[in-house]
Amino acid sequence: MRAEIITIGDELLIGQVVDTNSAWMAERLNEIGIELYQITSVHDEREHIVAALDEAFSRVDIVLTTGGLGPTKDDITKHVLCEYFGTHLIEDTRVREHIMQLYSSRPDVLNRLTATQWLVPECAEILDNRVGSAPLMVFHHGQQILASMPGVPYEMKIAMDEQIIPYLERYRINSNSKSSIFHKTLQVNGIAESSLAILLEEYENTKPEYIHLAYLPKDGIIRLRLSSYGEATETEMHQWFDRLKVLVADYLIAETDEPLEVIVGKLLKAKGATIATAESCTGGKLASLLNRHSGSSSFYFGSIISYDNSVKEHLLGVSEEMIQTRGVVSEEVVIQMANAVRAQIRTDYAIATSGIAGPTGGSEEKPVGTVWIAWATPEGTSAECFHLGKLREQITDRACAKALVRLIQILRSSIQ
Amino acid sequence: MRAEIITIGDELLIGQVVDTNSAWMAERLNEIGIELYQITSVHDEREHIVAALDEAFSRVDIVLTTGGLGPTKDDITKHVLCEYFGTHLIEDTRVREHIMQLYSSRPDVLNRLTATQWLVPECAEILDNRVGSAPLMVFHHGQQILASMPGVPYEMKIAMDEQIIPYLERYRINSNSKSSIFHKTLQVNGIAESSLAILLEEYENTKPEYIHLAYLPKDGIIRLRLSSYGEATETEMHQWFDRLKVLVADYLIAETDEPLEVIVGKLLKAKGATIATAESCTGGKLASLLNRHSGSSSFYFGSIISYDNSVKEHLLGVSEEMIQTRGVVSEEVVIQMANAVRAQIRTDYAIATSGIAGPTGGSEEKPVGTVWIAWATPEGTSAECFHLGKLREQITDRACAKALVRLIQILRSSIQ
Repeated sequence: MRAEIITIGDELLIGQVVDTNSAWMAERLNEIGIELYQITSVHDEREHIVAALDEAFSRVDIVLTTGGLGPTKDDITKHVLCEYFGTHLIEDTRVREHIMQLYSSRPDVLNRLTATQWLVPECAEILDNRVGSAPLMVFHHGQQILASMPGVPYEMKIAMDEQIIPYLERYRINSNSKSSIFHKTLQVNGIAESSLAILLEEYENTKPEYIHLAYLPKDGIIRLRLSSYGEATETEMHQWFDRLKVLVADYLIAETDEPLEVIVGKLLKAKGATIATAESCTGGKLASLLNRHSGSSSFYFGSIISYDNSVKEHLLGVSEEMIQTRGVVSEEVVIQMANAVRAQIRTDYAIATSGIAGPTGGSEEKPVGTVWIAWATPEGTSAECFHLGKLREQITDRACAKALVRLIQILRSSIQ
Repeated sequence: MRAEIITIGDELLIGQVVDTNSAWMAERLNEIGIELYQITSVHDEREHIVAALDEAFSRVDIVLTTGGLGPTKDDITKHVLCEYFGTHLIEDTRVREHIMQLYSSRPDVLNRLTATQWLVPECAEILDNRVGSAPLMVFHHGQQILASMPGVPYEMKIAMDEQIIPYLERYRINSNSKSSIFHKTLQVNGIAESSLAILLEEYENTKPEYIHLAYLPKDGIIRLRLSSYGEATETEMHQWFDRLKVLVADYLIAETDEPLEVIVGKLLKAKGATIATAESCTGGKLASLLNRHSGSSSFYFGSIISYDNSVKEHLLGVSEEMIQTRGVVSEEVVIQMANAVRAQIRTDYAIATSGIAGPTGGSEEKPVGTVWIAWATPEGTSAECFHLGKLREQITDRACAKALVRLIQILRSSIQ
């Protein structure tokens, strides 16, 4: 059973908004055995939306649309869908009551434009949108279905989790579609993509055609993914995944697709240990990653972001002399930063970063992209120098990845 | 002149990777007067890629593809394009030399798979990919053109900036296409989308049809964008934009689409002032925003991320008694945090945040989404309580937006 997503909105096509919705939806669809065949982003234009609907219905069973459901004039999705399915708008008293309730403490929002939100297409099934005023609509098109939801990511996510996914699961079961989609991913570090492919050449030549192997390099890590769309059994997938693990054992960082900071969190929790960071070039990005997920307060305690050298001096005990003789991007400075933040925030582990994120500030000896990272642990402190590319964002993202990969190795070796 | 983007890669369709490339490319295309008509994401599958190419060429002059150019088996774009344009692969000595040079310090990467990267389609123009091994290819299809580039964002960005955009500009000029695309955006705060639309009803009814008005709500801010694709003159756009500014004057935050942290940075630089943050619930996200852009070291000095209460006590002078009597999410605590970090990091301004990002930790009195923010300035310290929704990421993103919006207002009022 296959689906397509059509994202509707001029903002996507002029680069004002990045479509983060589709990837999130794709993952959820795969979990319930629905393959996402294509993602199409179109303008808020009647003809464009209609053409995209026709094309999608020619290819798949399920069409999901996001966007264009606001109360303002530029949002036309509801009207276009009405026309497409040959229906008209009627007042829905249940939606009306929900919206009255939703805005009961904000009477200014209950104006005549908001009132247009409780007009819904007569032939559509209306599902509950708990957190917003846009109606969630499901249309039937012969045996095919279309579900339309808001483009605002947090509204879309609640709509998918609470309404659309359970709806599609019932639809899939009623359609007697039983195919299972499997994805199994591992992560490796310290080998080039082409060298990895040579290492896996025989493996690739012997595995069944219907189990796909994909290489996804990012921030110096390569994710290796095995996928099967309905043909492989779970046992078969496990067997081929196990063989893959053995082949890449020397480079293996994780046997799952979990973000590095999640793996770090689990390892720290398992040890009952805590962590802090002292960041210069990464400027809080590493802190932000470490506390991104719920439950992080049990292991992540805090950080000192020492962007300016005065902060390194006053709060992290880096002496002016050390900066002058060794340079602010140096082994001595990051080791001092890591030890100081570990002592100040009173944690078991600490990471420190200092580097040249660019575009200015590079020299021949220390070009843009040079980053020193230190890891302070109960067993001692070590540091390493990296050269992480040329673009500011790439350099800080890769520095965070390097910091976490090494920490994972340290935490694993001290557990064993 | 119109373009489409086809992004190629299974990872996009199973939700493993978010397509950030397309938005970035869209912005660049608009800048040189090329409208992006559609974005289509397809699988690494011959038939799917071919169908997408056929459809795109039936609609637009320029097709841009990203992805599928790695040396591994799962990447098939180059071979499919060869077949599509009826050509075959030949060795390109210039590309070969470039790759030998690129990996001169990493001989392990110069293996036989990497060697396949200097095989290029005979009929394609090959442009320089300064930072990677994948060839940048331009194909001619009658009067239409196709440019293929890598999917790794930083390689794609350098390829676009240095090669593809200048190439497309020459193509557009040679084709005598002179249309100009204008987008003008302003940002407002403190009014609901539907109320704003009612305020702008007459404006919307009187403006020319070919000037489009779009509403883009995000993190409590609404961006209002006027767009024209070739029909409006620059003067006309300015006039309608000026009228819009007057109408929304009471809510206006910015007359541009610049991110809030960029506006803050400019205001701080203009005053020669500096800033620090003390963050609990935002956990370094605000710090990260403030130092995201080049040049931020002149105004952003550092932060104390006090995720654990012990850090609030030891480094920010929040007393255990204050936490027990007022609660850690309280006016007193954020004011103390802001004042302390301003003193410790020795800056002119400071922002502090403390809130309940959830999903756990909420109570009836202080539900998930409750966030206190304080602003310490040379003129004194103020604080405000916000209720920012239910989802962890939404809450912290909105808290950063609220913190920056109020800071912009403070900085503007103290300049005047």
